[in-house]
Order: sequence, then C-alpha cells, then structure tokens
Amino acid sequence: MLTKSYNYLIKIEYDGSKFVGWQYQTNGVSVQEKLEQVISRVLKEKITIIGAGRTDKGVHAFGQFANFKVNKKISKYQKFLESVNFFLRKNLISILSIKKKNLEFHSRFDAKERFYEYKIINRLGSLSLNRYKAWHIKQKLNLKLMKKGAKMLEGKHDFSTFRAASCSSKSPIKKINSINIKKKGDEILITISSKSFLQNQVRSIVGCLKNVSSKKWSFEDYKKAFKSKKRSFCAPPAPACGLYLKNVKY
Amino acid sequence: MLTKSYNYLIKIEYDGSKFVGWQYQTNGVSVQEKLEQVISRVLKEKITIIGAGRTDKGVHAFGQFANFKVNKKISKYQKFLESVNFFLRKNLISILSIKKKNLEFHSRFDAKERFYEYKIINRLGSLSLNRYKAWHIKQKLNLKLMKKGAKMLEGKHDFSTFRAASCSSKSPIKKINSINIKKKGDEILITISSKSFLQNQVRSIVGCLKNVSSKKWSFEDYKKAFKSKKRSFCAPPAPACGLYLKNVKY
Repeated sequence: MLTKSYNYLIKIEYDGSKFVGWQYQTNGVSVQEKLEQVISRVLKEKITIIGAGRTDKGVHAFGQFANFKVNKKISKYQKFLESVNFFLRKNLISILSIKKKNLEFHSRFDAKERFYEYKIINRLGSLSLNRYKAWHIKQKLNLKLMKKGAKMLEGKHDFSTFRAASCSSKSPIKKINSINIKKKGDEILITISSKSFLQNQVRSIVGCLKNVSSKKWSFEDYKKAFKSKKRSFCAPPAPACGLYLKNVKY
Repeated sequence: MLTKSYNYLIKIEYDGSKFVGWQYQTNGVSVQEKLEQVISRVLKEKITIIGAGRTDKGVHAFGQFANFKVNKKISKYQKFLESVNFFLRKNLISILSIKKKNLEFHSRFDAKERFYEYKIINRLGSLSLNRYKAWHIKQKLNLKLMKKGAKMLEGKHDFSTFRAASCSSKSPIKKINSINIKKKGDEILITISSKSFLQNQVRSIVGCLKNVSSKKWSFEDYKKAFKSKKRSFCAPPAPACGLYLKNVKY
C-alpha cells in the first residue's frame, strides 16, 4: 500500500447492543467494519480504521476515538460528518468530530488516559428506559462498601484477578488513576480511568464491587480476591450492556 | 360494576417510542391498555387504570403514576411487581413501586404538581445512544436566551399560544411553578413543573425556546408569540421523543 498523506482522528458514539464489538469478527458486524465501509464510501478511497479501545460485544461508547489515513485531504469537516452520519443512520453509530493529526499519530498507542463508565440501576423494578443500557441489580447495594472496595484498587497493582484468560497484555500490572462512584436516585455510575486496561478488567472489577456492596462477599472476601491474583477468585464479570467507553485523552 | 374494596397507586416507567400514547386509541397499543391487560391477568380480576398524565404518542415516562381499584387485597408487593414486570418485559414498561391509598384517591385529580423533563442534544453529530430519546438540534443554542425566555413563563399566565387546538381544558390560564434549564456537555435538560398542563404545552414551550435560543427569533418575536395568545404565533412543537413525564407529587 502506498503511504497515505493525511491522518485524521475522529470521535465516535455508538450503541453497542447489536454489534459483535469494536473489532472485526467473523460472526457478525463490528463497529470498525461498519465505519470503514461508510468512510471509504464517502471518501471514495479504501481506508483502515484504528480504534483507541477495543470494546467487547454489547459495550457502548460515547467517546471512542479512532484514526485513519487518506490520500485526499478532507477539506469540509461538517460536510464529511453529515455524509458519514447519514449513511450510518440505521446503525446507531455516529461520528461526533474530526481533527487532523500528524502522520505518526496512532489513536491506540498515543492514548494517555482512557475513561470507562459503568452504569448500574439499583432498584426492584425492571428497566425500560435503560434496557440494554445498564446493569439491573435488585439487591440493595451499600455505596460505602463499594467506594471502600474501589479505593483499594487505585494506584499501581497486579490485576491478575480482574483479567480475562484470553487477555493478550504482556503484564497484569496496571495503574488505575481513579475510580469515582456517584449515585443519583437509583442510578450508580462508576468511572474508572487508566492509561490502559487488561481485557475484561472494568467488568471484572464491577462484578467484584457488586459482590462486596450487596454483601454477598464480606470485605475480607473482596480483599482476598484482589490479593490472590487468581482469576478463579474473581466474581462473574458485570454484563457488557452497562459499560461505556467514555473518553480518551491524548 | 360492584364497588371495589382496595385502591392502589403505582409508579411507572416506560419507553414511549412504540406506543400510541398513554391513553387507549383505536390505531395501536397504548401504555394504559397494556398495563390493564397484564395487571388484570396477574390479579385474576378485571381492573381499570387511571393515569396521572395522558402522555402523547412517543412521549416517555420515568415517573408516571396511576391508580386502580380491586376487590382482593394485594398482600405481597414485591411478588406483585415482579409478576407484572415479568409479563411486561417485552413492552418496555415497568412498574417501580406500589402503595395502598384510600378509596377516594384519584391519581389524576389529586395530583398537586407534575414535572416534565425535556431532553435536547445540541451538537452536530447525530444521536446513537439517545436515538428516539432526545431532540437533536444542530444549530448552536444560546442558553442565556433560553433561560431568559423560560423565566418569562413562570407564574400564572394565559398560555393560549402554547395550547393544541384539540386541548379540552376549560381555561388557557395555568400557573407554571418553575422552569429549570441545565446543560451538561451537549445535553440540555429543561424541567417544567405545574399543577396541570394544557395539551401540548410543554412541547410548544420548548419549540418556542428553541426558536429564541437558536436566534431564529429575536427576543421580541418570542415575547410577541407569548403575549399574542394565538396558537398561530407558536413555533412548531418540539418532537415527542424528547419529552419525559418525570414525577407527580400528591
């Protein structure tokens, strides 16, 4: 392939419910695939998209980022956004903004911080407005215990407990910058930020926080799971539908 | 019909996208109809439901209230909620709570204050996560003008401008207790409270606030529309998909 002349960074929102995930899969349509098809069509040039976060099947994003290179300069940003969004309108994917970057820029490797948000609705009644958009937990959760459990994970640790067996990361050691937990009515929002995450790390953490805050686990059980560095001690990961890629900082 | 012995108030959430509205219609399924079917089935007794707010086609609710009378006492609230929500699971309607009231209680006539929320997403990129759940406005809105316009409407006024031709209310005079406008990122939430509303009042108000905040109208135009008391001076009402019945106080 010839060297392309321009490199663009786009911000993307999507409802992940009907996709097999961000990345190409053989068993269904991925967000990446759909975006490449539509952008290639609009620009009349085959492009390849590199995403900042490889979200799983069913995971949403209101701030995914991706870059792609092209030969022809994109001169009218608004027109580009409107054309791409028009062709994407039936897919619940939208491009929110576009920016020119230098040719070396890589949306995945150059990310300085990623933010994921996890949404729980904690109430008896089932979800209608948040169906497939949040984790519905009926047992009353203790926010204090949840926050105490989250606090322990901040900083640099071995996160082997919270790592999927299929994770390809070289090391289980990661640094979590912060975990913020906010409650408003029956909605609990957990925001986790880190330079990078292990596969399934956020959902595994939320699964364990649910166990300690619902008192299925004592706080000692929770600590033991974290310190064991063993996947077998992890709680069942929280469902994909509550997870959102919120933002990526460069 | 025999006098029933018990009167219950329920709180309801629904995604209005696929309903013809709260009230019975001949051209499709209403929320009221679906709820009556399911509650009658669960209680093995034909019941009639009275809603606090008659929301239009496509309008949502996270805090609709309704009451119904029955002969048999409902003794296990959690079991009742779970059974009803189980049968409603494919309809994006959920019952959130139930409470016993005296036999005279009427969810519509006894309401002291109703709260509606209107959601606007103000950005260029189309909506994916809020598709059918908000009004997408591309032109930049001026929040200061919107707030100034809203402020004028608080208190007791003749709201003829903001009233649908089909409105059955005796008088166009209503008292708006408050209009609160909050912006967070690209989301604008407008909360309006009043004892009762004219038909289409909230959507008509939001339509006019959009015209003044997008500078399609000068502030003078806005004032003139309001003071004219003529429906023909009203902006096109805001779309139903952005409107939520938020709460009802008794």
